[in-house]
Amino acid sequence: MTHPGTDTRSLSDLTTPCLLLDLQRMRKNIDRLASHMASLSGTLRPHVKTNKCIQVTQEIIAAGQVNGITVSTLQEAEYFFAHGCSDILYAVGIVPAKLPAVADLTRRGCHLKIVLDSVEIAEAVVADAEKRQVTHRVMIELDSDGHRSGVRFDDDRLLDIARIIADSPDCELVGVMTHAGESYHCRDAQSLLALARQERDTSIAAAERIRAAGIACPVVSIGSTPTALAIDHLNGVTEVRAGVYVFFDLVMAGIGVCDTSEIALSVLVSVSGHQKERNLTITDGGWMALSRDRGTRGQAVDYGYGAVLDSESRPVEDLVVSGASQEHGMISRRASVSPLPYEQLPLGGLLRILPNHACATAAQFDEFVVVDDNNRVIDRWSRTRGW
Amino acid sequence: MTHPGTDTRSLSDLTTPCLLLDLQRMRKNIDRLASHMASLSGTLRPHVKTNKCIQVTQEIIAAGQVNGITVSTLQEAEYFFAHGCSDILYAVGIVPAKLPAVADLTRRGCHLKIVLDSVEIAEAVVADAEKRQVTHRVMIELDSDGHRSGVRFDDDRLLDIARIIADSPDCELVGVMTHAGESYHCRDAQSLLALARQERDTSIAAAERIRAAGIACPVVSIGSTPTALAIDHLNGVTEVRAGVYVFFDLVMAGIGVCDTSEIALSVLVSVSGHQKERNLTITDGGWMALSRDRGTRGQAVDYGYGAVLDSESRPVEDLVVSGASQEHGMISRRASVSPLPYEQLPLGGLLRILPNHACATAAQFDEFVVVDDNNRVIDRWSRTRGW
Repeated sequence: MTHPGTDTRSLSDLTTPCLLLDLQRMRKNIDRLASHMASLSGTLRPHVKTNKCIQVTQEIIAAGQVNGITVSTLQEAEYFFAHGCSDILYAVGIVPAKLPAVADLTRRGCHLKIVLDSVEIAEAVVADAEKRQVTHRVMIELDSDGHRSGVRFDDDRLLDIARIIADSPDCELVGVMTHAGESYHCRDAQSLLALARQERDTSIAAAERIRAAGIACPVVSIGSTPTALAIDHLNGVTEVRAGVYVFFDLVMAGIGVCDTSEIALSVLVSVSGHQKERNLTITDGGWMALSRDRGTRGQAVDYGYGAVLDSESRPVEDLVVSGASQEHGMISRRASVSPLPYEQLPLGGLLRILPNHACATAAQFDEFVVVDDNNRVIDRWSRTRGW
Repeated sequence: MTHPGTDTRSLSDLTTPCLLLDLQRMRKNIDRLASHMASLSGTLRPHVKTNKCIQVTQEIIAAGQVNGITVSTLQEAEYFFAHGCSDILYAVGIVPAKLPAVADLTRRGCHLKIVLDSVEIAEAVVADAEKRQVTHRVMIELDSDGHRSGVRFDDDRLLDIARIIADSPDCELVGVMTHAGESYHCRDAQSLLALARQERDTSIAAAERIRAAGIACPVVSIGSTPTALAIDHLNGVTEVRAGVYVFFDLVMAGIGVCDTSEIALSVLVSVSGHQKERNLTITDGGWMALSRDRGTRGQAVDYGYGAVLDSESRPVEDLVVSGASQEHGMISRRASVSPLPYEQLPLGGLLRILPNHACATAAQFDEFVVVDDNNRVIDRWSRTRGW
C-alpha cells in the first residue's frame, strides 16, 4: 500500500528536527501482531490514535486480520471516514455535547460506535437518539484492571446500562469493550500473560452476564499492545485493539514486548553545541520534538527523553537525552560519567532519538518522513491532529 | 489590536478539549512587564515561541517598549516575517544545515540574527556567508548560569568567536545574548533577584571584554520571564527577552512571579465519568490536550497535570489532574483523600484546567479560543507550529 514518490533524498537533506519512520521495521511489527492474531483466529480493530495517518493504517489493513478501526477523537473519526474507513469505534467515553457530531457521522454512513460506563450517560444517549431520530451504536466500557474508566463485570450497573440501551428502539447495544492499561506497568511475561487473561476473561464474563439477562451482546472487544501480543487464546473475544505495536517505543521495550532495535520511529536531530566542562552535547531536538513524555522514568532503564542513535540507527554507547527545553536537547551518558564520545557527536552532525512513547512523540509532528533500509527518504505521510 | 468577530458564543458551544485565552488577564500580564520595562527605560524583544500567534504578538507590540521579536524556530521566523515582523532574533544555536534558510530570509529583507557559541560553528557561518554572498548577523550566546548552552564571559573562546565574526566582511557581530534558564528553579524573590543580576552583569562583562579587544558589540540581550520581572536596573543592557509572562502558568506561580488567578490560559474539558470507588473523576482532557509537562513536580505545590477550575474560573477545592492518558484526564484531590465534590463535577459538565507550562500546553492546540470577562467567546486566533 506504499506509494513511494520521487523523494529519494538522504537524511542530510532534511530539516531537523523531523520524524523518521523506518518502513521495513514498521512492516515487520505490523506482521508480527497480524500473524499472532491469525494463529489465534483473532480479528484486529487497530487503534489508529498512534499513527493518525491513512497510509500507516492502510499498511495495517493490508497485513490482514483487520475489521474496522479504533479512534480516540471524533476528529480522527472524520479523517479516517473521509479516507474510506467506515467501521469505527470511538473508544473514549462519550459526553452528551459530542452526540450531534456522532449523529452527523452516522447519518453520512459511518458505522460509528460510542462507549459509555454510566446510567446517566446511557440515558442521555437514549434521549439524544430519540430526539435526533438517529441510531446511536453503543458499547459498554468495562474496567478490567482498575486502570481508568469503565464498570466492573460484576457491578449491577453493567446490567442497568445494558437494559437502558437495549430497551431503546433508537439505540443498538453493540457489546462490551475494555482496555487493560495497567499492562504498561507490567515488567515480565508472566504478569503480562496474567493481565491479558484477566482482560479477556472478565470481558467475556461481562458479556455472558448481559446475555444471561436476555440481552444481545454480540461484540467482546479487548486490547492494549502488551496484552494483545501476550494473549494465548481468544475464544469468546470478537476483536482485539492495539496501536503502539506498529511502531513500538522505549516504554514497550521496557515492558519486554519488543527490542529497541525494532522501534520504527525516531526523531532526527542536529548537534548544535558541546559543553565539555559539563560533559553535555546540545541538539536542536527539545521537548517540542520529543514530547515531554518520561514514560521510562519508572522502568528498569530510564532513557530520559530518549535513547541516542547515530544517523544509521546504531546506538551511540549509553547516550540518552538527559534534559530538554523547548528547542534544545541535552545529551549525556545514562550510566557513567566518562567523557562523551565527542568524535561521534560532531557539531552539525545528525543523530536519531528513539522515543519513550510513540503516541506522544509522533503527535509533535505533522508528518512521517518515510525511510528505507538504506536510510533514503522514500515518502512523506501526513498525520491528522486536533479534536 | 484585537479584532473581535461575531463569535460571541458561550463555553458550552465549544468542542472540548480546547484552549481558552482570557483576554483581560493576558492584557494585564502584558502591561505588567511593559510597565516594568518602562520604569527601567528598558526595551523588550518578546519571545513569541510561547504564543506562536500574530494576534498575541500584536497585543504585546501595542503595549509598548518593544523592538523586534525572538523566535525558537525558523518556521516561526517565516510566519512572523510573513505577518510583518522583520526584526527577528532566532535564539537557538544555529547549525550549518539551516544557513540556506537563514540566507533566504535575509535576502527577502528579514533582519534576522542567529546565535552560536563555538569557534567551529562561527567558522562555518563565515564560510557560508562568503559562499552565498549574504550577510549573516551573529550574536554570541553566553552561559550566564550553567543552564544549557553558551560560552562563559571569562572564557577565551568568547574573544576567539568575536574575532572570527568581526573579521569577516560578510558577517556582522550584533552582540551577545544569554538566557538565565536556571531562574525556573528559583523559589524565592531573593535568589531570583540575585540570578537576574548575575545574568545582567555577566552579559555586560562579556560585551565589555569584546569591546576592550577593539571589537564593536552593540547589543546586550538578556532574559527569561522570572528574571525580566525581577531585574532592578538595565544600565548596559539593550534588550530583554521573555515569553511566558504573557500567559503565566502554574510553574511561574510556583516560582512566585504570579498568582494562579493571573494565569490567562486554560484547557476546557468535559466530565465523562465518575469512578467513586477510587475517588476519581474522568474527563476528555488527557495529555494530548494538557501536554506531558510535569513542571510543578519539583515545586512546593505539585499540581499533577494541572489545577482544576470550574467553567467560570473558580478553583474547585484542591482538585488536580492527577493522571493522564492520551485522551483521558483523571481528577483527584491533591492534598487529601476526602470524597470528591461530585456535585461540582457533573457528568457532561465543563471544567477548566490551568497548565503547568504555557508553552507546552499551548503547543498541543492549533488555536486560542479568546474569551472575555464574562466567559463569552469573542474570537479565535490560530497558532503556527513545526520547524
